[in-house]
Amino acid sequence: MPQSPSEKALIPFVSVENMMRLVHHVGIETMLVELTDVIEEDFRRWESFDKTPRIASHSREGVIELMPTSDGVLYGFKYVNGHPSNKVEGLQTVTAFGLLAKVSTGYPVLLTEMTLLTALRTAATSAMAARHLAPKGAKVMAMIGNGAQAEFQALAMKVVLGIEEVRLYDIDRRATEKTVRNLEGSGLRVTACTSAQSAIEGAAIITTCTADKQFATILTDNMVGAGVHINAIGGDCPGKTELHRDILLRADTFVEYPPQTRIEGEIQQMAPDYPVTELWRVVRGEAEGRRDAGQITLFDSVGFATEDFSALRYVREKLKGTDFYQEIDIIADPDDPRDLFGMLQRAR
Amino acid sequence: MPQSPSEKALIPFVSVENMMRLVHHVGIETMLVELTDVIEEDFRRWESFDKTPRIASHSREGVIELMPTSDGVLYGFKYVNGHPSNKVEGLQTVTAFGLLAKVSTGYPVLLTEMTLLTALRTAATSAMAARHLAPKGAKVMAMIGNGAQAEFQALAMKVVLGIEEVRLYDIDRRATEKTVRNLEGSGLRVTACTSAQSAIEGAAIITTCTADKQFATILTDNMVGAGVHINAIGGDCPGKTELHRDILLRADTFVEYPPQTRIEGEIQQMAPDYPVTELWRVVRGEAEGRRDAGQITLFDSVGFATEDFSALRYVREKLKGTDFYQEIDIIADPDDPRDLFGMLQRAR
Repeated sequence: MPQSPSEKALIPFVSVENMMRLVHHVGIETMLVELTDVIEEDFRRWESFDKTPRIASHSREGVIELMPTSDGVLYGFKYVNGHPSNKVEGLQTVTAFGLLAKVSTGYPVLLTEMTLLTALRTAATSAMAARHLAPKGAKVMAMIGNGAQAEFQALAMKVVLGIEEVRLYDIDRRATEKTVRNLEGSGLRVTACTSAQSAIEGAAIITTCTADKQFATILTDNMVGAGVHINAIGGDCPGKTELHRDILLRADTFVEYPPQTRIEGEIQQMAPDYPVTELWRVVRGEAEGRRDAGQITLFDSVGFATEDFSALRYVREKLKGTDFYQEIDIIADPDDPRDLFGMLQRAR
Repeated sequence: MPQSPSEKALIPFVSVENMMRLVHHVGIETMLVELTDVIEEDFRRWESFDKTPRIASHSREGVIELMPTSDGVLYGFKYVNGHPSNKVEGLQTVTAFGLLAKVSTGYPVLLTEMTLLTALRTAATSAMAARHLAPKGAKVMAMIGNGAQAEFQALAMKVVLGIEEVRLYDIDRRATEKTVRNLEGSGLRVTACTSAQSAIEGAAIITTCTADKQFATILTDNMVGAGVHINAIGGDCPGKTELHRDILLRADTFVEYPPQTRIEGEIQQMAPDYPVTELWRVVRGEAEGRRDAGQITLFDSVGFATEDFSALRYVREKLKGTDFYQEIDIIADPDDPRDLFGMLQRAR
C-alpha cells in the first residue's frame, strides 16, 4: 500500500468552486478593493521583483503564456491562454491557473485556479491605474467590449473610483444584455448603447476590452475628447490592438513593463522608442500621472506577472483559517530526500 | 450552493501516490524502455517543436525553472526547482510538476507530479543518448554521485543498454549504501567504491550526477581513458559543472539544445563557439555519433523541455483506462463563456 503523503508533500489547491466560495466569503467588492491595494503595494516596491516579459507560445488559434516573477522570498507564475475562437465552441477565451512557491526551497505553497482571479486582478489593476490617471470626480465609464471581464471592470471602477454609471457597447447585443443583467442590483446606473460612439458620450473613463486577435480599431481619433482616461485592456498580444494610432499621438501613455508592452500593447503600433511612463513610477510619486483636466491619459494595459503575484499572495493570506482549498499531493517527499527510488519501491 | 463543475472543467491530476501506482502497474523497467523510445521519437521530429531555453529564476539557494515547449498540437511545460541545500532540511533537491494542454484551445488536459517522472525521463534520456554514443557492448558503468537519480540511471542503462555492473561512488558513504540497498535484486552487479578513481576502473560509461551548485571537478583529465562515454548530468545550471575542461578538449561533445547547454552545461567553461553536435541529428542519422572505439564521447546533458513533453504525453496515454488520477476543477467553465461573472453570482 502506498504510504500516505507526509505533511511536507501536501500543498493547498484552490479549485474554481473554492475560489467562488472565497470570493463570496470576502465579498466581491471588498475583494476588489483589497486586491487594488495589494497590487499597488507591489507596484510601489517594483525594484524588488525579478521581471521578465512573459513567455508566449503563439499558434494560429491563440496563445499560451507563462508569467513568472519573484520578490526574492516568494516565486509566482501564472499559466494563461488566450483563444478568441474558443467562445464559438462554448469554451472560455481566457483560462488560467497559478502557483506560488518559496524561493528558499523551491517548494510550492499554493496552486490555484486563476480564471476568476485574473478577471478580478485585471479589474483591480485597471482601477489602481485609474486612481492615478483618471480625471478627478469621474462618474461615468464607457465599457466597449462586454465579455467575461466587463462586470469585474465596472464593479472595480465603482468601488475604487466612485463611478456611478457604465455605458455598455458590444458588437454582439447579447453580450451587452448579459452584462446589463449581471449588473442589476450592483448600485451602478447601467446604460446599453447601440454604438461605441454613443457609449462614450459623457464618459470620463473609456475602457476597451474586446477579444479579437487582430489589429482592430475600436476607437478612432475623433471619438476621443479632451480630458478622458482610456483604460485599454484588450490589446494584449502581438497583432492585437484596439486603438487608432492617432489617439496614441494625442495621449500620454502609461504602461506596466515596457519590454512586454512594446511587443503586446497598443504601442506595438509605434516606434520602439515611443515615449511611455512606467506606472510604478507614478504610484511612487516619481513621475507625473494626470497633469491637467484636458490631458488624455492612456493606460496601455497588457497584464503583468507582478499583478498575478499580488493576487496569489492575497489569496494565500485570505485562505488562512478557511477550508476553501483541498490539499494535493504534488511533491514527492521521501523520508530521506536522496531516497526517491526507495520511496517508490516501498510503495509497491 | 456552488454548481458542480461541468465535465469540460475537469482535468486529470496525477498525484505522487498515483504516479507510483502507475509506475508499478506498468513496471519500472518497461516504463524506462518505453520512455526511452518516446523521447527518441520526439528527438527524431526535433523541428516540429517550438524550442526555447528554459526560464530560470536564480537565487542564492537555488533555481526555479519553467520549461515550456509545443509540437503545434500539444503544449507542455514543467515547473522544476534545484536547491542543493534542501537535503540538509530533509527536503528534495529537485521537485517538479508538469502540465499538458491543447494548443487549439489552451485548455489543460493533464496536470501531474513530475519529481518521479523527471527522474525516470532523465534516466531514459541518458540511456537514449548512450544507445547512440556509448561503446558497443558496454557492460560496466561508473556512477559518481549516488543521490536521488542514481538507481533510475542504473536501471535504465541496464534495460536499454545491457549494462551488467554499476560501480558506485559518492563523497557521502551513506548515499552509496542507500543505492546499494535499493539495487539489490535489480539483476545488476553493484560495487561500492571508496573513490571516484576506483569507481571508473573498467567502466565503459561514466555517469556523473552530483548536486553541488558550484564549479566542481568530479572527473579530472587523467582519470578518463580512451573510448569511454561520459554521461554528465549534474552540471546543469550556470556556475555548476562537474568535469575538468581538459576532458572536454579530448572528447566529442553532444548536447540537447545548444542555446541552453552553452549557459548551463559543462560547455559553459568553453568559448561560445565551442563545437558541439546536437543529439537529435545523431538520432536522425544526420550527424555521426560514436566514430571509433578510441573516441571519448560526452553527453553534456542539462535536461530539455522536449524530454518532459515526451514524458507527459506518455503518461497521458498510459492513464487511459486506469484510475491512477483524480479529476480537479481548475478551469472556470460557465455555460456561456462570456458569462464568467454570472457563474460567480449563481454560485452564491
